[in-house]
Amino acid sequence: MADVNRQFRLAARPEGLPKRSDWNLATEEVAPLADGQVLVKVLQLSLDPAMRGWMNEGRSYIAPVGIGEVMRAVGVGKVVASRHPGFSVGEHVTGAFGVQEYCRADGKAAAKIDLRLGTLPQWLNVLGMPGMTGYFGLLEVGQPRPGDTVVVSGAAGAVGQTVGQLAKLKGCRAVGIAGGRAKCDFAVNELGYDACIDYKSEHVKDALKTHCPKGVDVYFDNVGGEILDAVLTRIARGARIVVCGAISQYNNTTPVKGPANYLSLLVNRARMQGMVVFDYADRYSIAVKEIAQWMREGRFVSREDVVAGLERFPEALNRLFSGENFGKLVLKVADE
Amino acid sequence: MADVNRQFRLAARPEGLPKRSDWNLATEEVAPLADGQVLVKVLQLSLDPAMRGWMNEGRSYIAPVGIGEVMRAVGVGKVVASRHPGFSVGEHVTGAFGVQEYCRADGKAAAKIDLRLGTLPQWLNVLGMPGMTGYFGLLEVGQPRPGDTVVVSGAAGAVGQTVGQLAKLKGCRAVGIAGGRAKCDFAVNELGYDACIDYKSEHVKDALKTHCPKGVDVYFDNVGGEILDAVLTRIARGARIVVCGAISQYNNTTPVKGPANYLSLLVNRARMQGMVVFDYADRYSIAVKEIAQWMREGRFVSREDVVAGLERFPEALNRLFSGENFGKLVLKVADE
Repeated sequence: MADVNRQFRLAARPEGLPKRSDWNLATEEVAPLADGQVLVKVLQLSLDPAMRGWMNEGRSYIAPVGIGEVMRAVGVGKVVASRHPGFSVGEHVTGAFGVQEYCRADGKAAAKIDLRLGTLPQWLNVLGMPGMTGYFGLLEVGQPRPGDTVVVSGAAGAVGQTVGQLAKLKGCRAVGIAGGRAKCDFAVNELGYDACIDYKSEHVKDALKTHCPKGVDVYFDNVGGEILDAVLTRIARGARIVVCGAISQYNNTTPVKGPANYLSLLVNRARMQGMVVFDYADRYSIAVKEIAQWMREGRFVSREDVVAGLERFPEALNRLFSGENFGKLVLKVADE
Repeated sequence: MADVNRQFRLAARPEGLPKRSDWNLATEEVAPLADGQVLVKVLQLSLDPAMRGWMNEGRSYIAPVGIGEVMRAVGVGKVVASRHPGFSVGEHVTGAFGVQEYCRADGKAAAKIDLRLGTLPQWLNVLGMPGMTGYFGLLEVGQPRPGDTVVVSGAAGAVGQTVGQLAKLKGCRAVGIAGGRAKCDFAVNELGYDACIDYKSEHVKDALKTHCPKGVDVYFDNVGGEILDAVLTRIARGARIVVCGAISQYNNTTPVKGPANYLSLLVNRARMQGMVVFDYADRYSIAVKEIAQWMREGRFVSREDVVAGLERFPEALNRLFSGENFGKLVLKVADE
């Protein structure tokens, strides 16, 4: 079993949007397990905006993927062989398994997941890294108070889903920003946002004025660029801006566009603060239990956009940057 | 006595650097005092970068000065007539008296100052608004811890003097950024900075690498622009950036240059936070007593650059933006 493993390796550092030639689809034999290792059959992979950053050279919150290395990706899978006393064949696990069909992982690199709490794609979405990012980013950095107006860009996306629903559960007014009517309708009708601004057809600054009459108390920013600048003009006194990402800038071949309106922070005694989800790893389990409970009660939904086939990885990843995906983007690699 | 009052009124909203024609030097008679008013003979005025912002139209932390109005300025003066039971002729006071020779002020608009704590110009510097800005901005927003590296732009200027000296008193490493060798030498030799980078002759990013080997924990920003961007590349994990001002951008006729490296906040879980000194008004007296005590003990210095003559106001103000002033810029309007 499992003697052949197809893998996407990084062939070149992309300039701008990744091209097919930046990837190398390699095939290797699966090496025998060493003591303490498990062999994971990768079932589904999470495709995230952050992956674009991992492909660049240079200092960041995590080392870049080296040229020739298997592309880093978080996935869910099943243990198909084990030389680790803590793992048995048939157990489901999650970890940074990479864009490949099989991963040999040591015990620390795999965490068991409980499929009674959520499905495989949900474990990559609201119970996974995006959900944890939204949960800790909003609650710890955004510090919403009941009655606050919380604005979320990428409102229908992986992180935005959790942030918007959580804001409502915490008694806030939630206003989303998303691209296209379908995503905005989903945000309002299924995620429970009070309003959602379609940045493709609306003037964001004017729409913020309409939907946030008392100003923006918390802005959860996944996109950066012009939308960040527009929100800065509408922040309330003491506002908190959570810098979670800046997908509009990730494929820039010119320098990042800094927020020209940042002096609004001064005028409004506001702050802009960055966060990296890994810092909250010791509390993931608390958040997972809470979100799973809300899902059981029908108070929290999770929407994924599943693309099937490992070989479709390069095109699937780029759907994130064109905004084509609708919900958390997941690559299905294999059936159970 | 005091029947004629010369005043600088705002004649036009400047584009870029204020021109002489943006001001109108008017002369009016001093109207009689109403009940509850005092007549203040203005002795010295504080010239501050923030004044440039007050000349622009639009929403800010304080209403703009209207066209035709006396230019707003904080000053120190002497009560020369009083119809207020709380003030006697001969007492020294501070307040937003405006760029003029005499100010009729009600009781709330004047606060007594104690010249045993500091001289008149010191009351406009380390015991005045710049000192309070540095004190509360550093301690409340910057939250320095012993051993932290604190970087201060405008290091030898009005606010920077207080921030640098306070950082040292709190057990931090203090690294200044200033324009020209003379200011840098003053910062190191008289204010006690551990190092000071001359942005006019040094490469700021490289110099920060040299002088902040463990990264920047607190950055107190008075200047914005390219220097803010350079510091962002060197911040440490969990850094706090105090957005106090952005003098490099105040005379822009093009949009403000936003910090292109702001995503460093994300990577480093850092924050950038604005502050306005007025929010701390109820605690000014505590800070004043503390700084005055340090001055008496020879542990805190105050340096002012005094220009004499009300009529020199327009050119004196512009010295702030060319960086010609050396120390807190004060306009001497009259002798006692």
